[in-house]
Amino acid sequence: MSASAYTDAIMLFGDSLTQAWSDGSLAQRTAEYYSRRLDVVNRGFGGYTSTWAIPVFEQVFATKEAREKGYAQNVKLITIWLGANDACLAPSPQHVPLEEYKSNLHRLISLIQSPDSAYYAPETKIVLINPPPMIESKWLDSRIEKWESFGKEGPKPDQNRDAKVAKEYAEACKDVARETGVPVVDLWQAVVEAAGGEGDDQLDPYLYDGLHLTSEGYAVLFKALTALLDEKYPELNPETLPMRMPHWSDVDPEDPRPAFEKVKNGRLTGEL
Amino acid sequence: MSASAYTDAIMLFGDSLTQAWSDGSLAQRTAEYYSRRLDVVNRGFGGYTSTWAIPVFEQVFATKEAREKGYAQNVKLITIWLGANDACLAPSPQHVPLEEYKSNLHRLISLIQSPDSAYYAPETKIVLINPPPMIESKWLDSRIEKWESFGKEGPKPDQNRDAKVAKEYAEACKDVARETGVPVVDLWQAVVEAAGGEGDDQLDPYLYDGLHLTSEGYAVLFKALTALLDEKYPELNPETLPMRMPHWSDVDPEDPRPAFEKVKNGRLTGEL
Repeated sequence: MSASAYTDAIMLFGDSLTQAWSDGSLAQRTAEYYSRRLDVVNRGFGGYTSTWAIPVFEQVFATKEAREKGYAQNVKLITIWLGANDACLAPSPQHVPLEEYKSNLHRLISLIQSPDSAYYAPETKIVLINPPPMIESKWLDSRIEKWESFGKEGPKPDQNRDAKVAKEYAEACKDVARETGVPVVDLWQAVVEAAGGEGDDQLDPYLYDGLHLTSEGYAVLFKALTALLDEKYPELNPETLPMRMPHWSDVDPEDPRPAFEKVKNGRLTGEL
Repeated sequence: MSASAYTDAIMLFGDSLTQAWSDGSLAQRTAEYYSRRLDVVNRGFGGYTSTWAIPVFEQVFATKEAREKGYAQNVKLITIWLGANDACLAPSPQHVPLEEYKSNLHRLISLIQSPDSAYYAPETKIVLINPPPMIESKWLDSRIEKWESFGKEGPKPDQNRDAKVAKEYAEACKDVARETGVPVVDLWQAVVEAAGGEGDDQLDPYLYDGLHLTSEGYAVLFKALTALLDEKYPELNPETLPMRMPHWSDVDPEDPRPAFEKVKNGRLTGEL
């Protein structure tokens, strides 16, 4: 008997930019794009850094052994989108030095790609996403506004981010992509191109608080992501993936059951 | 070693009304509402009827044995939303007679609630959702428009639905709720109330093709659903559920790992 009946999945792994399930978010767009094909498993954790992401990954990604025994979903694609919090300025508790950020990304990729890793998953395609540009003044205003709305508890927020530093982390993510051969969505560049420049006013429509993407910002990401997938992993185009359960018009109304029972697409096969 | 690391889930089970992952859909709203708390597993299948839903359920819902051994997600809540296609007029292949619709819903509930069922899941709370009202003319226009846009292939669509019949199925779903004690969202009534009446013009903003809900229609559903959950299953309020992984400000930056490893919320525990 099958252990369960989960189908293949996409894991979105990262920080608050990934965590969002709002209208137009990466998660919502991806779930809609892969509707009836792949489940979207959102493992975005607001405020988390690439350093924290390693022990978290070990908790949320199934081991090779579990997958081989058929007890876990196959993650066909994982997006790794980190660095926005690492780029906080020291002495912020979220600050991760640039070189450590790079080595953390290397470590995450190695956990998936190294045959020695307990999480080895050669069937899991990886896409890196680098952090988007930011607007310093809008971000500080947003933090002060929140502080005021919560009764000015604690010290008044000061600037904990810098747009030039954020860009360094975006570049570093691309370095890791080059070093590992893992495809990367250059979101920093894509947003700046869509905005027509790096000016605060130009970036404004894409970043609702100076740091987090608006639906328009996510649209830029999603366009770049699907273009990259088409180029690097055409086998992940939803049109080429089998549909979970047949189209309703392919079901024989006189004898419907066989149409559903023969579907083995992505099913867990672990015998109990 | 843990087999995997999926957390507890909500399963949305039904037809195309459930399948949608669009902006403002039931799935998107539920995923956002339960962000960091429960995964949303969308098992909506466009065009499917309550008769087809039974063999499908047996494929997509984990067995009791699998869950007890820790190899499958615990479904904390399942929404069962069927009947819109059953209400197609005979001789449509989707037509399911009213009494059969009711007995199918009884069967689905029994598969979850009966201790003799291989799918017995006493921890799974159930909510029924009845089909919304429909607009006959808008639905037929939409079908004809689609037929024209596909080069008028096949016979010109005729009317295969009836608003009064749809209402009978909505009432029948409420009968099943009464007979089984399972809570029901009376979506039919909620939409008519929000619309201020059953007139085509009144219902228009809620149904984009006369049958499927707009974001405004889903908003009516979601408001009614969360109110019902608060009343019947207050333990499912996201504020009362543990958050997957701690809030970032609760992580010790000097020693982050223990914060993530101690989290056992909803993890699969199957030993390999």
